[in-house]
Amino acid sequence: MSAKLWIQQATIITMRGEEDVFVGDILVEEDRILGVYGLQQDERQQLEQAIAQWGTIDRTIDASGMAVMPGLINAHQHTPMNLLKCFSDDLKLMDWLEQKMFPAEARMTPEDIYWGSKLSMAEMIRSGTTTFADMYIHMNQIAHAVEETGMRASLTRGLVFGDDRVQERMQEAVDLVERWHGGADGRITTMFGPHAPYTCPPDQLRAVIQLAESYRLPIHIHLAETREETAQIDERYGQTPTQYLYELGLFQQLHVLLAHGVHISEHDMSYLEGMRGGISHNPLSNMKLGCGIAPVLELQRRGITVGLGTDGAGSASTLDMFAGIRAASLLQKLHYGDPAIESAYRFLQMATIDSARLLQLDHEVGTIEIGKKADLILIDLNKPHLQPLHHVISAIAYAVNGADVHTTIVNGQVLMHKRELLTLDEQQVLKEGSMRSKRLVAGL
Amino acid sequence: MSAKLWIQQATIITMRGEEDVFVGDILVEEDRILGVYGLQQDERQQLEQAIAQWGTIDRTIDASGMAVMPGLINAHQHTPMNLLKCFSDDLKLMDWLEQKMFPAEARMTPEDIYWGSKLSMAEMIRSGTTTFADMYIHMNQIAHAVEETGMRASLTRGLVFGDDRVQERMQEAVDLVERWHGGADGRITTMFGPHAPYTCPPDQLRAVIQLAESYRLPIHIHLAETREETAQIDERYGQTPTQYLYELGLFQQLHVLLAHGVHISEHDMSYLEGMRGGISHNPLSNMKLGCGIAPVLELQRRGITVGLGTDGAGSASTLDMFAGIRAASLLQKLHYGDPAIESAYRFLQMATIDSARLLQLDHEVGTIEIGKKADLILIDLNKPHLQPLHHVISAIAYAVNGADVHTTIVNGQVLMHKRELLTLDEQQVLKEGSMRSKRLVAGL
Repeated sequence: MSAKLWIQQATIITMRGEEDVFVGDILVEEDRILGVYGLQQDERQQLEQAIAQWGTIDRTIDASGMAVMPGLINAHQHTPMNLLKCFSDDLKLMDWLEQKMFPAEARMTPEDIYWGSKLSMAEMIRSGTTTFADMYIHMNQIAHAVEETGMRASLTRGLVFGDDRVQERMQEAVDLVERWHGGADGRITTMFGPHAPYTCPPDQLRAVIQLAESYRLPIHIHLAETREETAQIDERYGQTPTQYLYELGLFQQLHVLLAHGVHISEHDMSYLEGMRGGISHNPLSNMKLGCGIAPVLELQRRGITVGLGTDGAGSASTLDMFAGIRAASLLQKLHYGDPAIESAYRFLQMATIDSARLLQLDHEVGTIEIGKKADLILIDLNKPHLQPLHHVISAIAYAVNGADVHTTIVNGQVLMHKRELLTLDEQQVLKEGSMRSKRLVAGL
Repeated sequence: MSAKLWIQQATIITMRGEEDVFVGDILVEEDRILGVYGLQQDERQQLEQAIAQWGTIDRTIDASGMAVMPGLINAHQHTPMNLLKCFSDDLKLMDWLEQKMFPAEARMTPEDIYWGSKLSMAEMIRSGTTTFADMYIHMNQIAHAVEETGMRASLTRGLVFGDDRVQERMQEAVDLVERWHGGADGRITTMFGPHAPYTCPPDQLRAVIQLAESYRLPIHIHLAETREETAQIDERYGQTPTQYLYELGLFQQLHVLLAHGVHISEHDMSYLEGMRGGISHNPLSNMKLGCGIAPVLELQRRGITVGLGTDGAGSASTLDMFAGIRAASLLQKLHYGDPAIESAYRFLQMATIDSARLLQLDHEVGTIEIGKKADLILIDLNKPHLQPLHHVISAIAYAVNGADVHTTIVNGQVLMHKRELLTLDEQQVLKEGSMRSKRLVAGL
């Protein structure tokens, strides 16, 4: 834990504006950004005064040749599924789910979930993600892992309906909220998580909506990921998945985090306009599962917030948000046949401040601002694939990968420095992950 | 230079078959693979005998926890353009070319080209590429850089027509071939490089074809990259770009490396069927410039070889072939809406043996085989983003990135070990690249 941290001579990308990029220093005190100082004389004087007031400094980081930016925020994850990454790729979607993922997941013990989520956290910290939104089961285990690793997370107990264990699951969802909302020094927040339109009938979904309203907490739900889902909801209710949620009143009061939103029509967008929350775009997963291209830019033009996620490693195979940023940008260029359709900066916004909005954390993280939480990453730019550095925003969007992250800081605590993980035992995580995964997939 | 190199306990991916993956050792003698040994008793005995015959060993590499596979082959590159990477992204294609790339390239001195190509080689060696096909100008400079860095390359003097310097360029193309074909211990081969249908009128293209035929050397040419090209060739000749090349006799005798091939119709494919050579698919560049999705799987079904390239870093922003493999696979899954449309292995083939075929080097590289050139890469798998390792081929296609490459070997020479470049001065390359690029883009 660094109570007083001085980051020196970085290229600071505040994400408060496309041109707000400059060389300077950042002071972190406890969990927050105390000051941001450029190279101008008055700013140097302010920096010196602040340092003088401090007296002692716990850690200085020479960040010359590095960029510092807000930590990336992965808006849609199923962290324990990292145990199943690359286990059964290149299968048809329903074969993959029903013959591989569901049976393997059914074998997961709480301990598996703990270690699987820790494995994801190791990968995320290494690749510059500081916050994530997670929907899974046995969320206590994941909350403990978040507490220990020092990450920031929005946790959701996923709720599917259709058997006699509904009340048990609902109780777990409530327990998660009661026990962990605001926990781990405020790093943990919670949502309610009805899984998806096709797994949540109207009555049950209404019940979850009421529950969320009574707790004044957001909802995290999958929406319109596949063509099959659209067909299924149309057959059952004569509605699109988006309309189905709208008619149930989901978008009236609640803050809602919608995952995927691939198959959203022009007309569907009118249901979403003015909503609180928005959509987590997960391009790597959507491509890999052959789902389609989400209408990201049209949603944004309608004022709907679109953040960025990877989805679980079970589908996406990687939690590297830089790969996600690049994929998101390239997909839109491809979709419109126009390389100028949107700036690289806009996609960095999606992975930072827009994802923060989805998690209702934009007042605390997502930009570099005095008084905000110190969730920061340092990117080492002095490498052949990043030099010459004509445009640092472009380099981050199109050339950086997770392995270029040098230091990861959450809530003022340094979780990785010089590529070394400081809050978890990496070899133990790798060993547990490897051992446990063998049992999960045996015979499948 | 390692005359006798012993790679121990690696997961060997020979690329001679999807199931041909096993743990074992590889012996390299001078520039070639002397032996490949699994864990069975008779193979262990053969290994011991070979080691005993050697007497001395120059270098052993403990590759436990690593995969070894054939070095990646980047089938389409413009190496010096690395000096312009991320300089002017997110512009319309013609604005990008005419207002940014062409003026900056016009300022390039031979020394700029030398250092720009070295920068690309540093990036390629670091990310596991051992061979590349390059089309540019001042190719002597690039040949010298290849000679020094130890990489393998197929070099082509790009030929555009339309001014009075045509004869000069043709002479440079001939000089390159005469001087460098078979050079650098056989690591350099050459092709003739008429730039593209839209920059090469029929008479000049015929002249280059004759020249290539007289030297019995291949041709490297851009084809059908953009919709604009298709429209332009239709307007000029009433033909598709593919038909235009076919009618001029390009595919009759010559081995041809076609770059891009995005806009190829069903009918165009009949012109290509039975051709020698094939197409370099460059998905990252095609997406970034909004060009479209090449019909990779249809071409392959017709028996046309499709390899993989990045294109120059000026457009693609990265030379990481692992990013290219992933993009190629995900694009086809997206295009067909089917995650099962093709295996991960098929895309690894494209980046290795199929690219080797395009460069007419498949008898020497592209697979791990006794007697072939020792162009090998070691990938460190003991990392959170690659564990648990359910399926090493999937992990390489979907989760590995260039920074996971631990060791790069070309022609039996270790070019990188433990992420340290051994045949070039990385800091000097970064410094020269940064300094020179500033002059190239000043005022643009």
